[in-house]
Amino acid sequence: MLKYIFFDIDDTLFPSSEFAELARKNAIRAMAEAGIEETTERLHTLLTGIIKKRGSNYTKQFDELCRKLKVRRPARYVAAAVAAYHNTKTGILPYPEVPRLLLKLREAGYQLYVATNGDAVKQWDKLIRMRIENYFEDVFVSEEIGREKDEKFFAIVLKKINAEPHECVMIGDREDADILPAKKAGMKTILVKRGKYSEGRQIKKGKSSADSKIKSLSELPGILKKIWHQ
Amino acid sequence: MLKYIFFDIDDTLFPSSEFAELARKNAIRAMAEAGIEETTERLHTLLTGIIKKRGSNYTKQFDELCRKLKVRRPARYVAAAVAAYHNTKTGILPYPEVPRLLLKLREAGYQLYVATNGDAVKQWDKLIRMRIENYFEDVFVSEEIGREKDEKFFAIVLKKINAEPHECVMIGDREDADILPAKKAGMKTILVKRGKYSEGRQIKKGKSSADSKIKSLSELPGILKKIWHQ
Repeated sequence: MLKYIFFDIDDTLFPSSEFAELARKNAIRAMAEAGIEETTERLHTLLTGIIKKRGSNYTKQFDELCRKLKVRRPARYVAAAVAAYHNTKTGILPYPEVPRLLLKLREAGYQLYVATNGDAVKQWDKLIRMRIENYFEDVFVSEEIGREKDEKFFAIVLKKINAEPHECVMIGDREDADILPAKKAGMKTILVKRGKYSEGRQIKKGKSSADSKIKSLSELPGILKKIWHQ
Repeated sequence: MLKYIFFDIDDTLFPSSEFAELARKNAIRAMAEAGIEETTERLHTLLTGIIKKRGSNYTKQFDELCRKLKVRRPARYVAAAVAAYHNTKTGILPYPEVPRLLLKLREAGYQLYVATNGDAVKQWDKLIRMRIENYFEDVFVSEEIGREKDEKFFAIVLKKINAEPHECVMIGDREDADILPAKKAGMKTILVKRGKYSEGRQIKKGKSSADSKIKSLSELPGILKKIWHQ
């Protein structure tokens, strides 16, 4: 019987890729408003290049952008960019169906958990910003478990909460980081086809090994019934 | 004739000490709401101790607080504290008279500048958050000038904008960092008796060497006339 539901965060509970892109766009608009002498198109191209090279968690992206543009006194533009960027990142909202769905699942007696890769404080910050942190019994982050989501990660987590694999389902957007490892650990799996990984190389049409594929979490209650009665 | 007006930022344009204290209190409330098992009084005492030891710009204050309390999995509480702290710090407001005053001074033909100690991006961030950055011709921060506010700092700044000392007034809350060095550089000075430095050792009753002392910037237009006609 299903008892435990695990959720990934990014592009599963909220449109992470969209917010990241919006944050960069807002940062560039703020630099333009602060008077930087450059087109927003060129700023966007340069910033995209920096993020490609340094990774999306690079904190000095706007300093590097100003260096590339040879801005003599960058503080004003960096401050404007960082403020706009953070305002967007701290204003994240869950997918609209999420809060009511989590409440409904709790009412139905399920225990809800988060299983996510990344920095523990950053992942908690997202849940807190979206005000959905209280729906979860616990939040398991790779940084704390000591390994990224793989078969062993899920084995450790299941032992911690004293759960059997057949009582669990993992819900996430990534075939590699959500579906495959949870499946190997013996859990059921549901792929959410959303965000930047939904149409990539990873999941060719019909190639996901998930027990079910959905486009929105609002399909979840129906799908759970189906999976546990098949 | 007076042409150039220089402002300090912290506790001159906005109640910096109050917001810092409020940010810490909100952070502690957020930790309590997140379920940390400790009284808010003890959290406040411990946090005050950490800040006293590490300085108010220490970024790992909440991590250290959790270590002191031997919290086994601190990420949730650190994330809650940092989010509440940043929400307060990014929600700073100028003293209520400030935006209209700055506009009025600009309309009267004065050129307005900021002269402040600190990190350039951080000081710009405050002006941008308060939406008063456009009132100033330029912002001079110690980090960019290469030295904290002293006689030489003001000499460098005045040369940059091609101003004579007798055309300038410096307005700030600190006898040591605002009044004395600006006075040595030949500028007029106005002490704002506000914030944590207003009643400290530095300024005994009547002991400030400023040309004038005010309690609110709303007194400024009247005081400027008085100083330049004495």
